[in-house]
Order: sequence, then structure tokens, then C-alpha cells
Amino acid sequence: MDRRSFMKSASVVGVGAAAGGLAAPAVAQGNMTWRMVTTWPKNFPGLGVGAQRLGDRITAASGGRLTVQVYSAGELVPPLQSLDAVIDGTAEMSHGAAYYWQNKTPALSFFTGVPYGMTTPELTAWIRYMGGQEIWDEIYDQFGVQGFLSGNTGTQAGGWFKNELTSVDDLQGVRFRTPGLGGRVWEKLGATVTNMAAGEIFQALQSGTLDAAEFVGPYNDLALGFHQVAKNYYMPSFVESGLATELVVDKAKYQELPDDLQAIVKDICQAEYDQVAADFYANDPRALRTLVNDHGVNVRQFPDDIMEAGAKASQEVVEELRSSDDPLVKKTTESFIEALNLVRERTEMVDLPYQVARQKYLKY
Amino acid sequence: MDRRSFMKSASVVGVGAAAGGLAAPAVAQGNMTWRMVTTWPKNFPGLGVGAQRLGDRITAASGGRLTVQVYSAGELVPPLQSLDAVIDGTAEMSHGAAYYWQNKTPALSFFTGVPYGMTTPELTAWIRYMGGQEIWDEIYDQFGVQGFLSGNTGTQAGGWFKNELTSVDDLQGVRFRTPGLGGRVWEKLGATVTNMAAGEIFQALQSGTLDAAEFVGPYNDLALGFHQVAKNYYMPSFVESGLATELVVDKAKYQELPDDLQAIVKDICQAEYDQVAADFYANDPRALRTLVNDHGVNVRQFPDDIMEAGAKASQEVVEELRSSDDPLVKKTTESFIEALNLVRERTEMVDLPYQVARQKYLKY
Repeated sequence: MDRRSFMKSASVVGVGAAAGGLAAPAVAQGNMTWRMVTTWPKNFPGLGVGAQRLGDRITAASGGRLTVQVYSAGELVPPLQSLDAVIDGTAEMSHGAAYYWQNKTPALSFFTGVPYGMTTPELTAWIRYMGGQEIWDEIYDQFGVQGFLSGNTGTQAGGWFKNELTSVDDLQGVRFRTPGLGGRVWEKLGATVTNMAAGEIFQALQSGTLDAAEFVGPYNDLALGFHQVAKNYYMPSFVESGLATELVVDKAKYQELPDDLQAIVKDICQAEYDQVAADFYANDPRALRTLVNDHGVNVRQFPDDIMEAGAKASQEVVEELRSSDDPLVKKTTESFIEALNLVRERTEMVDLPYQVARQKYLKY
Repeated sequence: MDRRSFMKSASVVGVGAAAGGLAAPAVAQGNMTWRMVTTWPKNFPGLGVGAQRLGDRITAASGGRLTVQVYSAGELVPPLQSLDAVIDGTAEMSHGAAYYWQNKTPALSFFTGVPYGMTTPELTAWIRYMGGQEIWDEIYDQFGVQGFLSGNTGTQAGGWFKNELTSVDDLQGVRFRTPGLGGRVWEKLGATVTNMAAGEIFQALQSGTLDAAEFVGPYNDLALGFHQVAKNYYMPSFVESGLATELVVDKAKYQELPDDLQAIVKDICQAEYDQVAADFYANDPRALRTLVNDHGVNVRQFPDDIMEAGAKASQEVVEELRSSDDPLVKKTTESFIEALNLVRERTEMVDLPYQVARQKYLKY
């Protein structure tokens, strides 16, 4: 969509929404109201709830001096126009995932997560201590916005499959719903990949248009009812090993805020990086128990040759970005790989052997 | 130390410190200054630095309305009197680790971490979504204070050993520096356990008083020079699988703060839970590379039978707490075990298989 037609459609949506009674930005008694558009449905577990909570926490910590009015997907602009809404001044903030804006530059994928990428604690280490934020700033400076990490789902579920998988051969021609770079990895494995919105997946599985689909994990998937039409729930997702959300703000307006309000926005985004992950770590296993105990779902691990082929295909996808002609895409990829190679040494030397031993030897 | 002699020594230290020019609490133009005592040496990597940064972030986000003056270990009170300093009003805040106060109740161990316990993301899930904070509040209410998670080291290193370990037999009689419940686990494995302050460990290893010692992990240990006197660095620590720090505040004074300042203190503690972990995830592997490449350290995994015996001994230590006559210790232990049994299902079904596969199949 070009800028002019975007502005036109955005303003139509904007006017319609305002006529519907939504609050316009206001300055009263020195207080400001900022509009946060989001890519998430209202009350969407973990993520939509997290966006609302982030807005509420900024309002509370600022004593109302910066009041955040949160609009769920479609309320003010369509979800995938959230970033453009900030760029064009329709909103001051957007809550979503950086990889939704890959059409602006594929470098943005890394700030959500790439296939066979970083885990939740690894990504924050790259962003805060290994140059990740500085590169992200360089990318978003081109659009006059500033990004902050604002949540993480942890490693996601691999997907719902109607048929059991015994090897990578079983993936040939499987019609699989999965978006983005992860979709490109699954194509390399032989699947026929398609993307569709959350609300369409159930119907497509039921009608036979899809053989398989992945969305987020048990906490979100339970609500969408996939278990009614596909009984094999495969773990883990190797293409979404730790999906981070972002808060994007209009950089000029952000920099005009008093220092204390700038700190509050940034600090609460970081608090939410922890809060959202905690929500998933507590509620994914609760939902998984329900799926298994009440709905007869078979939780399975992907066969080892799929995990291996997935790693090869993921590496190819990332290497393509490393050899990009765009210097910023190349630079982002190189920073990511260097950081991953460092942080995984700790993960594999310390975290992993502990968790393996605990799994084997500790039983309460 | 009883309360009277504590008060006496604390007031002497306090007066001495004030005479030395340290700021007293002040109310000027509606601004407050709060004293934060800490259990960490000044500039102690990860933890002392984190306490200072937490104080600075509260000062910044509050626009100076709540200015935090940070005192490193011994500056205002001795490190292990930090909690008592808040209870007795010598300071408004203490930054340390809840398991330092096991003499008040062993239930506090769980809010730092117990042997073969939770990892960094698991602990925050228990605290925020599975009843952990509520129990912690019930414990600290007895002392008129409020605790918040304020950092996490991630899974720590297992320890420095002069001799290579081939099985649990090699631990018999080994003179090992390790504190707390972890020390009790190592005693059950046959080690002769002692505790001593950080500054004394090097000398004890050098003189032969100790055969082995554990402290934190590469980031902290490198600075202390243990690699000069013990070349075998064993991973991981199964008794400190994710050590959380706390900020403790005087509850009455905290509740008298305006709502926005209460939110700021709480939110920034949560942001620091992420920040401190990111610091360790980035800087532990950097330090480990230095130890290996520049100092010839041998990084080794504990033999499997030690990991197994460690699990058994850790479970015994936790089960003793579960059968405590103190209802709050029993309740804390039961909540912890129930939460661990839930969150580990996600860890073991999703996170762990991903990390195992990445270790095997992804090589940039």
C-alpha cells in the first residue's frame, strides 16, 4: 500500500472510530493521552492482555501524566497497519511484533525472533548488552520511531497435525499454516505453506483446506479449538524459539517527554518482557494439561530428522540475510550470529545440562 | 545477635557513617531520599552494579521525587544486617538475597532459590502467577517489610576443584566452600562443607585449607582469581539453578508513598529482574572465554552420578522443609513443589528439546 492510499484508509478508519466515541488525544491539566494501537485482538491471552496491561502500568506509574488509551486490532487501524499508524501520526504507540514489518526490511525479523534463533533470556542479552538495541535503533531511525522489547512468549509449540509424523518424508505436500521466515523453513522441508488469520484456521482445518497449523502455544491455541480437528500437538517450535513483542513509539514525541516519563515508558516495557513470559510459563502448562486430560490431545515431539532438517533449513534462511546487499540487513544478521554464538555457550554449558539432569533425576 | 546488641552496633555504624558525610534522609521541595543498604560489595559485577542501577532508575523514573541513596556492603551496616536495618528503620530499602535471612525462617530460601530448584523464567512464573508473591508477603508481613524480585543470576557455575572428579567417590572429605542449603546438599554427598566470605576464599584455596569452592559464575569468579589456584571449573551448579535477588522495603513507608511512586518501585524491580539476568547471560560467557583462552582453565561437566546423587540429596533437603512444624514453611514448600511440577512440564516438553536440538544441529 502506498502512502497516499494508506493515509486515506487510515483516516477513514480513524474518523469512523472517533465518531464511535473513542477518546481523542488530550492535554488537560498538563496530562497527555497517547493512543496505543495493537496487532492483537482484545483480551488475546498473553499478548493482547499484555498490551493493555503495559498501557495501564504507564498510566499508573506516571500518575496519569501520560495516560495510554489502548486500541485492540482493528479498533483504530487494521492490525497490520499499526506501525504505519505511528509513522503517520495516527497513534503515538504500537504494540506488536517487529517481524510483522519485514516488508520494510527483513532485518526487523531478528527483533522478534528468527528460526532456530534465541530463547527469551538470550534475546534480551543481545538487545541490552551485545549491541542489539543500537542496531534496532539504527533501523527504526529511518522511520522516525523507537522500539522497545515489551514481552516474550517463550519457545512456542510446533503445531497441530492431523496425522502422526514419523520422519521428514511425512511433511511432503502437507498443507501447513505458518507465517514469515518460519514458513520459508517449512517450505524447505517439503510442506505447502500458507498463511491465514487466526480466525480462519479452525475452519480451514475442519474443511480439509489445511492438514496442519501452528499458532502460538497451548495458552492461545486452546481458546481457538484446534484440538477438535487435529489431535497431534507437536513440540517444540524450532522456528519460533522465543517470540518477542515490541512497543514502538513516535521517536520525536518520545524525546519531547520529560526525562522521568521517558524512563517510565522504557522501564515498564522491560518489566513487561518479564511479565508476559511469566504469564506464558505459568499458563501454557495449565492449558496443556486441559488439552491432554479433557480433550485427549496427543502431545508429541517432532522426530529427530525433522529437528535436524529444520536446523539446516533455518540456517540457510538466516545465511541468505547475511549475504544481503542491504548493509543494515547484513550488519544485523552478523551481530545476531555473533551474539548467538556467544550466549549459547552459557546455555549449553550451564543451563542445558542442569535441565537435562533435573528431568532425569528429580521427581516430587 | 539479639535485638539490643544489634541496635547498639547498628547505631554505632550509622553514626560513624553519617559523620563520614553520607546523606541523611531528607524531605526538600516534596522530594524524599531513601537509603538502600545492600549485601554486595561496591561495583560487584551483576549484583552490586544491579543494586546501584536499580536505585538510580527509581530516582530517574520518579524525577527525583524518590531519590535512592545506595550503600554498598558495610558502608552503613554490615551486609548480613541489611534486612534488620530495614526492620529497625536504619534504612528504607535493602538489596540482597532472601536466603540470607534463613535464620528468621527457612521459608525465605525459596524466594532466592533452593537446590535443584527453578530456573530464572520458572521462578518469576511462580512468584507472579502461581501464588508465590502472596506467600512471600505473608512471611515478610511478620517483619513489617515487603519483598520484590529484583534480579537473577541464571543457573550458576558448580565450582572450582583442584582435582578432577570422576565420580561421587571423589567428593568424600573434599573441603568445599559453599553456603546455605546447597552446603547441606554437598555434605550429604560426602564433602566437608564450610562457608567463608568472598574475600577469604582465594587465600584458603592457595594455602590448602580448601580443596574446592563455588561462588557465583564466570563473570564474578574471574575477578576473584580462583583460576590461579584451581584449574577445574565444574558446571552447572545444581544447588543454585537460578539465584534471585530481592529488594525489601519498609512496608508502612512504602504504603504511604503516592500510588505512582509505589508503582515505580515495583515496576523497576521487575525490569531489573530482566536486566540483571541479561547482564549475566551476556557477560558470563565472555568471562568464560577469557578463563579458558587466557588462563588455561578446564571447563568440565559434573559426572552423571554426582548430578543424580545431587538430585536425591536436594530433594531430601526440600522434603525436610515440607514436613516442618512451622505451617508457613510447610505451605511455602508445598506451593513451590506444586508450581515446579507444573512449570517444568513446559520446560521439559518445549524449551529443553529445542535447546538440545539446537546444540546438536545448528552451527554458524
